[in-house]
Amino acid sequence: MARAGSAVPEEPAPPRRRRKQHSRRQEVLDTAARMFFERGYEATTTQDIGAALGLLKGSVYYYISSKQDLLFELIQQYHEDTRSYFAEILESDGSAVDKLRELITVDTAHTARNLERSTLFYLEWRSLPLERQAVIIEERAQHEHAVQKWIVEAQAAGRIRPEVDPKIASFAIFGMVNSVYRWFTPGGRKSAEEIGEDFADLVLGGLLVPGA
Amino acid sequence: MARAGSAVPEEPAPPRRRRKQHSRRQEVLDTAARMFFERGYEATTTQDIGAALGLLKGSVYYYISSKQDLLFELIQQYHEDTRSYFAEILESDGSAVDKLRELITVDTAHTARNLERSTLFYLEWRSLPLERQAVIIEERAQHEHAVQKWIVEAQAAGRIRPEVDPKIASFAIFGMVNSVYRWFTPGGRKSAEEIGEDFADLVLGGLLVPGA
Repeated sequence: MARAGSAVPEEPAPPRRRRKQHSRRQEVLDTAARMFFERGYEATTTQDIGAALGLLKGSVYYYISSKQDLLFELIQQYHEDTRSYFAEILESDGSAVDKLRELITVDTAHTARNLERSTLFYLEWRSLPLERQAVIIEERAQHEHAVQKWIVEAQAAGRIRPEVDPKIASFAIFGMVNSVYRWFTPGGRKSAEEIGEDFADLVLGGLLVPGA
Repeated sequence: MARAGSAVPEEPAPPRRRRKQHSRRQEVLDTAARMFFERGYEATTTQDIGAALGLLKGSVYYYISSKQDLLFELIQQYHEDTRSYFAEILESDGSAVDKLRELITVDTAHTARNLERSTLFYLEWRSLPLERQAVIIEERAQHEHAVQKWIVEAQAAGRIRPEVDPKIASFAIFGMVNSVYRWFTPGGRKSAEEIGEDFADLVLGGLLVPGA
């Protein structure tokens, strides 16, 4: 993270030290994620995070430039995974319906598996400054467009009902997928992946027995 | 609202004055809803709301006991509508599938039509104290149970696919319905009611052409 690193000496550190810095950074981020998740972003201070990490008061700002940078970095980490599986699905050989099924399954499972970061993302992304929000909005729009394109393709191929409104359907799908952070319990009756598959079946097949 | 009224004299006001107080109260609530929606709950102060209403500094607390009371009252107003159409659907004569369709349609349209209050509800309900959150959680749970019961009934009647998990499906439905506040634009291509119907069709029929 560029800004957070600005207090670090410019000479390249020896590999070992660099690795240590990297894992220390990850520890800072994991602790921040846990505390934001448990207490809320507003209620957690930089000093609280420092104290939980056992940092001396004077060295907190060596690791943490600002609470908002931590929030942004956590949301970025969360989004980087999304970006990578989204790109994989886009490039895959399957039909539009296959891609749709894969995206719903993987996106749901990812949201559920990363509960601290996904909750932070959905509840707190408006706490980011507008230019950082814009990056996220742009990426989300790309995903929505891809889903809409797949629906249109599958309609042309006679696989998806012609009366489905691709735009409304894409919003409905993401609304459903994203909401899993509200109720998912790790270690519960169904795994993140099983819920992802249930969601994909629901979106594609609906509730009703056809013709009944 | 009990607390907000504590500064009001105990003698019953003459009907005319009471009516005036009532509409003034509604004006306070509408202004608060608009300001919370536009600026966010955290960023809006009681004094801001007073100023927007043209209240003198000294009389703000006659109308507004606390920002949190306003939030609670707005969320309560929003929930009162929900409570009333939910009760109507519960008592109606239709089949479980009819009830499900009606709830999805009406709940989506209600969320979209009351954008200021629904946004406030979904983004800020955690700002309420725990005992007030508990009232809302309890009501939400009742709605989820009703939906689960309808799904089980419709499965027994052979109308809903036996492999549907009623609990996961109910969460998926509310996740979808509730998310409409994120993107609905009043005066857009489709009305709140049309989106409600699209959502109900999606949940019940799914995307795919059966058997294709």
